[in-house]
Amino acid sequence: MPSLTPQPLTKAAFAAFGDVVETDGAAPIEINQGFARRCNGLANIDVTSGGAAVNISLFEAKPRPLPIEIKLMERHPLGSQLFMPLQDRPWLVLVCHDPRDAASYQAFTATGRQGVNYARNVWHHPLLVFDEASRFMVVDRMTSDNLEEVWLERPLVLSIP
Amino acid sequence: MPSLTPQPLTKAAFAAFGDVVETDGAAPIEINQGFARRCNGLANIDVTSGGAAVNISLFEAKPRPLPIEIKLMERHPLGSQLFMPLQDRPWLVLVCHDPRDAASYQAFTATGRQGVNYARNVWHHPLLVFDEASRFMVVDRMTSDNLEEVWLERPLVLSIP
Repeated sequence: MPSLTPQPLTKAAFAAFGDVVETDGAAPIEINQGFARRCNGLANIDVTSGGAAVNISLFEAKPRPLPIEIKLMERHPLGSQLFMPLQDRPWLVLVCHDPRDAASYQAFTATGRQGVNYARNVWHHPLLVFDEASRFMVVDRMTSDNLEEVWLERPLVLSIP
Repeated sequence: MPSLTPQPLTKAAFAAFGDVVETDGAAPIEINQGFARRCNGLANIDVTSGGAAVNISLFEAKPRPLPIEIKLMERHPLGSQLFMPLQDRPWLVLVCHDPRDAASYQAFTATGRQGVNYARNVWHHPLLVFDEASRFMVVDRMTSDNLEEVWLERPLVLSIP
């Protein structure tokens, strides 16, 4: 079975797929009389075309059994989808340009302080958690009929570093 | 100095001010081939009137010295503002109907798994963290000129339970 080893998630490596939501590399501004620092504009939320509402959700993901077998990829033709971890625990991100082209896959290890925002139409795997059950806040489009799935002929294996 | 003791945050108690973003009381659906549960539609994101973009930010708030003195309140006339804690640590929420009417104030203790979404024009205090520095993800409106502040003639004191 072909396998893929995740690389550390960086804005540069992920740029073709969407945004990394993190304070690293951002320019914080001081607010609240010095009691808070704010990093603005960290993701391009592209969900409201045609007047759709923003959907705020909470997910709880269960850990995948190891080794993690990748059997399907999905994308959302009508909007971006943002995942922010709600605890400081690493998780995995898997994207590709073409789900039928194994060479187009890229896997990333995200820290517990990195969220991702998949751009509209970017192929990605559903949430990948490999240690303990983990909570995420999700920002996407309030809509139905916004999912395409492709089941792979040959599963991929993710090698956890 | 008049004082206020926070009460536990519940959807019912907060309904006049906005949304409590939490899984309690929500109806989860099973997704991702059984590897995740999703609670949808947890907040009314009201930020895009006039075509404004959604702003995704990360805040880091410093703990307030105790006792916490409340000296100003603020509101955003052009949009809602959502705060979700990124670690499982309690925080405080203070809102009012009229910043000049001490009887209209309500304080809440939020758990580390409860976010809040202040509705447009709801008076609230900036982030209140009382223990350690804490991180939040914020969803509001990408705009300037969206802040009103009122400095109180007589500060209020928050009594931490």
